[in-house]
Formats: sequence, C-alpha cells, structure tokens
Amino acid sequence: MAQVYNFSAGPAMLDPGVMRQIQAELLDYQNTGMSIMEMSHRSALFEALVQDAKANLRVLMNIPEHYEILFLQGGASLQFSMIPMNLMLDHRRAAYLNSGVWSQKAVDEAKRHGEVIIVGDSADQKYKCLPICDALPSAIDYAYYVSNNTIYGTQFKTIPMDHPVLIADMSSDILSKPIDVSKHALIFAGAQKNLGIAGVTLVIIRKDLIREDLSVDTMLRYATHQKADSLYNTPASFSLYVLKKVTDWLLEVGMDAMTKRNELKANMLYTAIDQSELFMNEIKKEDRSWMNVVFTTKDPQLDEAFISFAKSYACVNIKGYRSVGGMRASLYNAMPIEGVQRLIEAMEAFERQVKP
Amino acid sequence: MAQVYNFSAGPAMLDPGVMRQIQAELLDYQNTGMSIMEMSHRSALFEALVQDAKANLRVLMNIPEHYEILFLQGGASLQFSMIPMNLMLDHRRAAYLNSGVWSQKAVDEAKRHGEVIIVGDSADQKYKCLPICDALPSAIDYAYYVSNNTIYGTQFKTIPMDHPVLIADMSSDILSKPIDVSKHALIFAGAQKNLGIAGVTLVIIRKDLIREDLSVDTMLRYATHQKADSLYNTPASFSLYVLKKVTDWLLEVGMDAMTKRNELKANMLYTAIDQSELFMNEIKKEDRSWMNVVFTTKDPQLDEAFISFAKSYACVNIKGYRSVGGMRASLYNAMPIEGVQRLIEAMEAFERQVKP
Repeated sequence: MAQVYNFSAGPAMLDPGVMRQIQAELLDYQNTGMSIMEMSHRSALFEALVQDAKANLRVLMNIPEHYEILFLQGGASLQFSMIPMNLMLDHRRAAYLNSGVWSQKAVDEAKRHGEVIIVGDSADQKYKCLPICDALPSAIDYAYYVSNNTIYGTQFKTIPMDHPVLIADMSSDILSKPIDVSKHALIFAGAQKNLGIAGVTLVIIRKDLIREDLSVDTMLRYATHQKADSLYNTPASFSLYVLKKVTDWLLEVGMDAMTKRNELKANMLYTAIDQSELFMNEIKKEDRSWMNVVFTTKDPQLDEAFISFAKSYACVNIKGYRSVGGMRASLYNAMPIEGVQRLIEAMEAFERQVKP
Repeated sequence: MAQVYNFSAGPAMLDPGVMRQIQAELLDYQNTGMSIMEMSHRSALFEALVQDAKANLRVLMNIPEHYEILFLQGGASLQFSMIPMNLMLDHRRAAYLNSGVWSQKAVDEAKRHGEVIIVGDSADQKYKCLPICDALPSAIDYAYYVSNNTIYGTQFKTIPMDHPVLIADMSSDILSKPIDVSKHALIFAGAQKNLGIAGVTLVIIRKDLIREDLSVDTMLRYATHQKADSLYNTPASFSLYVLKKVTDWLLEVGMDAMTKRNELKANMLYTAIDQSELFMNEIKKEDRSWMNVVFTTKDPQLDEAFISFAKSYACVNIKGYRSVGGMRASLYNAMPIEGVQRLIEAMEAFERQVKP
C-alpha cells in the first residue's frame, strides 16, 4: 500500500498506529469473540470505554470537575440549535462573533430562538482576517465564537471575548494546543478532525448551565444526556471507540509535544509559501490558522494544475473550499511532519516547472 | 478466536463475511491509500457509496420512486421528535398505537407538538399481546405504530392500521421480511439491528410529505437532508459504509432466502420453548416476534443461572430487558441457524440438569 498524505479538512487523516490497532482488534474486542461494532452500548465493556474516553479528555484538556463531558450525535451542526434551545432562556438574546460560514450557520439557527447581536464581523474583509470583538452588550444569555475557521484558514490565538457564559465551536482545532476550558461555559466539536471519525460530537459544558426545566424535546436537552451519561439512546458506538483510541494516542504523545509539532508544521508551510514567488497566503499574519493553511497562485488554472501535480508527491485532498478556491492543506494532529515536507517539495518542484 | 453467538438486541451481530471484508479494506479503501474512515464525505467515492446504499435499499425493499431515502443522525429516538415537527402540521393531532416502551417514547415527544390520540394500547396486558387498533378518528395528520417490539418480543405480522399517512418505526425488523412500503408514508429504523452499526438512521419518506415551509430548525427538517442528498453536514460516514456492506450482503443472500431463514430460526426456538417443561414464552402466539424471542423459567434465580450456563455454549447477551427480566434472544438477520441450534442445546442441557 502506497503512503498517501491526506490533507482533507475532515473527515481527516488518522494516526497509522491507531489505524493498525483498530484493524487488529476489529473482529475480537478484548477477547469477547465479538467486534466492538457488535457490542451492546449497555455492556460493562462499552460503558467502561465511555468512561475511559471521558477520563482521557479530562486529562488532555485539563477539564475541571464542574464541567460535564457529553458525547452526542447529529454533528456540530445540531449544536447550532441545541445551544440556543438550552441556553438562550433568560434574556432571549446572545452575542455572536462572525468569522465565517460556520459562525454564520450558528447565527441563523440562534435567530429562530431569540435575538442575535453580532459583536464583530469580518465578512467585509471576505473573512481573510478575524473580526475584533466589540464591547459586549449587557443582558445577553451567552457570547459565541468559532476558534478556528476551516474554510478561510484563520484561527484565534487567544480567546477573543470574555463573558461568564462563553461558548466556542472548536470543531477544527480542539486538542491541537492547550486551551483554557475554565474561561468557557461550553465548548463543542465534531470528532472528524482531531478527535477521530464522524458520528460523535463532544460537548463540554459547565454543570450549572444544564437545566431540566425546559420545554425542549428530550433528545435535544443536555440534561437528558447528562443524566444518562451520554447513553440515553444508542450512540454511534464505533465512532466513540475511535475517539477513545485517538485520545489514548494523544496521551502517549503528550499535548506539549503535539502542540510543538503543530506549530512546527504550520510554520514550515507558511514559511515556504511566504518565500515562494508563485504561491501566496492572503490571511493577516497574526490570524493564520495552524490547522488549515489556505494558499493560491492567484490563477485558478494553475491552482488546478498544482492540485493535480501534488498527487504525484502523494499529497491529496488539497483543493480549497468551493466558495474560496485555491488550495487548502489541513494539518490536524495526525498529519506527520513528513507530509508537510512532501507538500513543500511538491510546491518547490511545481514552481521550478512553471517559473523556470 | 472462539466462535460466539451474540444474541444482543442491538448493537447486534454482523455477518462474519461482512466483518472480514471491512477488516481487509480498513486501511486502504479501493486503492486510495486511505481508510474509508479518513475519507471526505464530499469525495466522489463517498458520494458513490451513499448512492449505492440507496440503490441497494430500493431493490431490497422495493421502494417506489416517489419515496425519498434519507440517512440521518441522532438515532431512531430523534425521529420521535422529527416526525411531529415535520408532519403534525395541519390538524395538529395524530393517532398512535401503543405497543410498548418505544411507542410510548414516541407518544411523549409527539405530545409536545400537538394532540395525541391513543387508538389501541396493550399496557394493561403488560404488552404481552399486541393492541388492536380502534377505528381511526378523522382529522389526524398521521397514524403511527411500531412494527416489532424488542423489549416484549411482539411483532405485527400484518400492517395494523390503514391511513394515507401511515408511519412505522421498523428499527428492529426492517429487512427481515418483505414489507409493503407503498402502504406507508414514512418508515424509519436505527441501523444497529438489521442494517449495520449504530450512527445512521434510515428514513424512507413519501416525497409529497417533505415540506420546506416550516419554522423548524435546519437540522431537524427532512427537506434539508433531502436537498443535500443526506450530506447536509458530515454524516457518521463509517456507519453508512457498513450499511452499504450489509445491504450488499443481503442482496447476495436474497430477501426470500433471508425471510425463510428468519422464519425457520424463530420457529425452531419457539418450538423448543413450547416443548420445554422449564422454559416458557408468555406472548400471545400470533403476536410472537421473529426477531426477539423472550422467555423465562418464571424463577429469576434460575433465569440468572441459565444466562450464565448458556455462555458455556457460546451463547451470550441473552439477558432480558431490565423491566421485563428473564431471557431474550435476538435473532436478527446475521444470527446463523447454528446459533439458534446451540442455544436450544444449552436450554435442553440446562433443563436436564435442573429437572433430571
């Protein structure tokens, strides 16, 4: 099997060691004679797996005890609704920082449930920089931001707002570097970038915010899932199992080492882009994402040619998001340094070819 | 690896051939150098997989063209809400046939959205028989039933009600025998029994019922998922892949052969129970389920002893549902005839031991 570096924005690359482990035990999980895929979510072994996954996250992210860890279904997109349904209750209004498509989608759902105040927006700059947060209005239920913008390649290096009920969509940079959970009230993330595979959505929520006295449907209340320890109904059990394996691996590597590696990978690629006379990145330097590096030749045909050329260097899925064009290299935790090196080699070779 | 017969009610046994195929291609899907787990849901290969899964289901269930096939997240439990949200619109009332825990849960959610009329209920019989449906009231938006009751071991052998908008929860007997889709307006099922693994919920819905003019949140509207061909957001992609594999296998076996095998397995086990002087099944004979066979010795300690004894015959996960007690053997499609034979041998040996 040929080595391939998969720069997909998600579902994304997994660590090869994790993959081999999953394959090795796929037919027989812990000498039960059955696959984890076939195992009841009510079995002692599966319940232990869920507890272990939570314990791993508590260590990796330094999650205080007064925060609940929930594993939900529906993807991060369902959180765009569950958040206002469960938290936009007292003032019926909330502040949103708009940094791109994903925050805009969250705004659209929140508007169904109350008033949305946009406290910063970089739409006029085509999201090529991050918005600056205005002073927050009073009498809001929460303040909301997206920590990393996969499509535009921007990422907040520091927490951009301060509020007692601060919510962050960290789908695309969770576990890539240390974050201060205690500064947040709710953090959520789809699993398919840094946590494993699609099917499970992580929600970390301060326990005092979980309310039972809601008229919200059962499956859409955080209280339901808290009470049932994330097993109210059958979860996407295999996805949860992969999350457990990925967090085991992260514990082995260590968050310090992972953070350094992510910084190194991003710096390598941005340096190569900045030194190139062909490729460029138009994102404001301080706002550049470590996770998703967008770049372009400014010539759509040449971009197309490079995307194809890069395949001969085993670098695949570097096409940019449809509304942005150009290239995008996603450098999540499982992307090895060699993958970035290979991509840089491809860029250099391509540049020599078109600008001899 | 020792052969084990897993009688779990779900997540449940998968066909060993399907399992081996999944394992074999886990690290390299169709010579891409990457796993299906790592593949973008926007890739051509994954989109083809979704189309193939739909095509398989259309053949297996003979689904007419004016029905949409949707793959959703959240489990069947989220359908308890999505159904009234999307369909309890004109009269704001619906008829429910109550045959156990799962229909009751659906009733509880529907009540949040309108008036629920119970048109038959076997709660007084502790759900040991199926309810008879009363004449349906006029001016209802839909009529709802559960085709098979996993907990109590009952199953409708014929469609129990007749309505232009008939809805069925077929989570635990879908694809186990032919059903007339055209008599229904909406059929739904979690995947973790007969369709594959948890994480994907199949919804088959008559296209004229999918309305866009709703004030319902985006992720909770059928129209959203229809428009996006079940790829509005990242699906539980690995679960969808397994569903594709399982339906490939069902096409190979053929629905006729599968139906006969399921009937045979159920008959074998019910005959053994009826002939036993120790074990009994208290379900009304015409209402007995082919999928979940509940039985008991009437002595909780003896039941406990048998559950343990059966393990020495490689028969596992036969403990009954907590509110019912006793034993439950789930005989979904992937349970081989040999598994049922083995369980019967265990029952006979145990009976000889306790009633020599």
